[in-house]
Amino acid sequence: MSRIINFDHAAATPLLPEVIASMEPFYQEIIGNPSSVHGVGQKVKKAVEEAREKVATLIKASPEEIVFTASGSEANNFAIKGVAFANQQKGKHLILSAIEHFSVLHAARSLEKMGFQVTLIPVDKYGLVDSEAIKAAITHQTILISIQHANNEVGTIEPIEKIAAIAHEKGVLFHTDAIQTVGVLPVDVKKFDVDFLSLSAQTFYGPQGAAALYVKKGRRIMPLIDGGIQEGGRRAGTENVAAIVGMGTAATLAQNEMESRFNKLLALRDKLINAIPAKISHVYLHGHPERRLPNNVSYGFEFIEGESILLFLGMSNIIASSGSACTSKALKASHVLTAIGISHAIANGTILFSLGIDNTEADIDLLIEKLPPIIERLRAMSPLYKK
Amino acid sequence: MSRIINFDHAAATPLLPEVIASMEPFYQEIIGNPSSVHGVGQKVKKAVEEAREKVATLIKASPEEIVFTASGSEANNFAIKGVAFANQQKGKHLILSAIEHFSVLHAARSLEKMGFQVTLIPVDKYGLVDSEAIKAAITHQTILISIQHANNEVGTIEPIEKIAAIAHEKGVLFHTDAIQTVGVLPVDVKKFDVDFLSLSAQTFYGPQGAAALYVKKGRRIMPLIDGGIQEGGRRAGTENVAAIVGMGTAATLAQNEMESRFNKLLALRDKLINAIPAKISHVYLHGHPERRLPNNVSYGFEFIEGESILLFLGMSNIIASSGSACTSKALKASHVLTAIGISHAIANGTILFSLGIDNTEADIDLLIEKLPPIIERLRAMSPLYKK
Repeated sequence: MSRIINFDHAAATPLLPEVIASMEPFYQEIIGNPSSVHGVGQKVKKAVEEAREKVATLIKASPEEIVFTASGSEANNFAIKGVAFANQQKGKHLILSAIEHFSVLHAARSLEKMGFQVTLIPVDKYGLVDSEAIKAAITHQTILISIQHANNEVGTIEPIEKIAAIAHEKGVLFHTDAIQTVGVLPVDVKKFDVDFLSLSAQTFYGPQGAAALYVKKGRRIMPLIDGGIQEGGRRAGTENVAAIVGMGTAATLAQNEMESRFNKLLALRDKLINAIPAKISHVYLHGHPERRLPNNVSYGFEFIEGESILLFLGMSNIIASSGSACTSKALKASHVLTAIGISHAIANGTILFSLGIDNTEADIDLLIEKLPPIIERLRAMSPLYKK
Repeated sequence: MSRIINFDHAAATPLLPEVIASMEPFYQEIIGNPSSVHGVGQKVKKAVEEAREKVATLIKASPEEIVFTASGSEANNFAIKGVAFANQQKGKHLILSAIEHFSVLHAARSLEKMGFQVTLIPVDKYGLVDSEAIKAAITHQTILISIQHANNEVGTIEPIEKIAAIAHEKGVLFHTDAIQTVGVLPVDVKKFDVDFLSLSAQTFYGPQGAAALYVKKGRRIMPLIDGGIQEGGRRAGTENVAAIVGMGTAATLAQNEMESRFNKLLALRDKLINAIPAKISHVYLHGHPERRLPNNVSYGFEFIEGESILLFLGMSNIIASSGSACTSKALKASHVLTAIGISHAIANGTILFSLGIDNTEADIDLLIEKLPPIIERLRAMSPLYKK
């Protein structure tokens, strides 16, 4: 079987060998519960705390500000619901962008059913959130603003420092979903001045099952999962020790290699971004041309269906995605593409190529070779397409 | 280093070699997101669905009735909060026993802060829940009764079939936290007639990071984690594929070996239960003498501190626990021991020996040899003890 050329890193990143090696002892030899007082328990406790320090270092936080969760979606739900419930005596109004991840949007929708109000802020055609609209939406009831650091579908990087300042000027708490950026771009919670920040190991070649929420010291939040006293009483449940250890290892590697990874990805990304319109007509780059994740290439191919493109790419062992993996089965036009004003037709012909550090220039060359005839062939079959 | 004699299986069970072997490919080769439509995604999707079928089979449920979570605590929170929020238009009253796990009790406490009412039902000196008190506590506002199948600290097995019948007679939903029993005792959701049931892989030698809630077909529940459409829209977040696969493997092994494991554990348990009072005076077996988990031995040793006993046992490489790992650091008398009427002094001198299938008769012999002189020595130092 020939090698799979993976342009779907947004759905899952392969684990680095160092990450796997660091996890293995915690499956095979050192099985314990960090809350146990005896030696084995203390050994795994130490491993969890070392991982916490590594993750904290990656975002310039203190270890006690890191609450481990089992997924980025859990971290986002914890932030939105936990902050809302803990601060509802102050007010019941939240402000989000229209292009947040579903784990933020749907958590807020659940809160709406419980009497909270939610304002969705529009974005421009590049996916940039309208900061002035945020400022205008703040009322004396507003308790939380949540704007993602970068969008998972179109790659646009939001001006979150500016938005955090707007929030804090009015005494409103600020959360950012930085799941797409932590481990990829420099993230400094103090410089950004955020109160809450979500991150996930899966973005930086760590394991599934490990993610975290940064909770600034002193900020009030209600647990999403009540119970035992794990994570300082903020998230109950026996820790997934192996996954947390793997996340720590992946965090340190991401930090040490950030610049070289970034430069490598940027070169691959721009090669692909430039090659596609040079070889294929009627294509539309989604997202911001400059303020953009180094691993995100999202193109709309007019007159055809994204699913058909994926099918043909798959025959050449190339995998990519027609949108967020969390919603790809929904077969509705992406809420992100809709919010940036993309027509239903072009949204349906959109492919997200999410690059990873395991990609090579040869991978890009292969894609650039295979893609144009696929598009041509599909358009030839399309009743909508007139040359 | 000599081998560690593990009597703390309630905190963590070692993974079986077959479980580790089944998980490894999903760390090392097949990294994907089950929601992706391409080949790799479909391969992991298939693995997750096979695991779901194995877990369903273990409790005689249908696969679509299994919602994977990342921990037993998450499953309990999902059940308590999700059922309360989904059914609050019917009423806002819940009934629990006083000896539920903290992930049930504290989830209910969070609901109290949001306007729900919670009635705690007392237990007798064996830890048996008073079924008549449950019946008497039901009002037209009651939406959920949650009683654990077996207690994690004292091992008492509750008459949940009877309690489920009481609940359903009054049109009230019934949840059981069966985290201590699934994989250890036969559990049949249809025979028990439960609406919701929590289970965890960690009880049956599966990995940390994998657990589940059984949700009977047609029963309404709100997600705890909103977002993508994973788990039928009931629990968002990228699946922890490796852990879920490991849970499936562990479920099948638990099912196939249930009788032999049970008989082995029962013989070891009864040997230890009988040996302790034969060799040591002033000891008190907590929990029910017969309706009891086959792996639970909980004894109160009068006049001394549990922590000191653990320290001395540790010098012989024997590990056990002075209570639930989730609360052991709290240094308060266990709410379970308090509820069954154990004095503060004896509660503080309590050790839980939780046995596992890796224990041997030689382990028990060693414990029976080492324990009496430790107790004698500690009592000799105790100002409370007069021979």
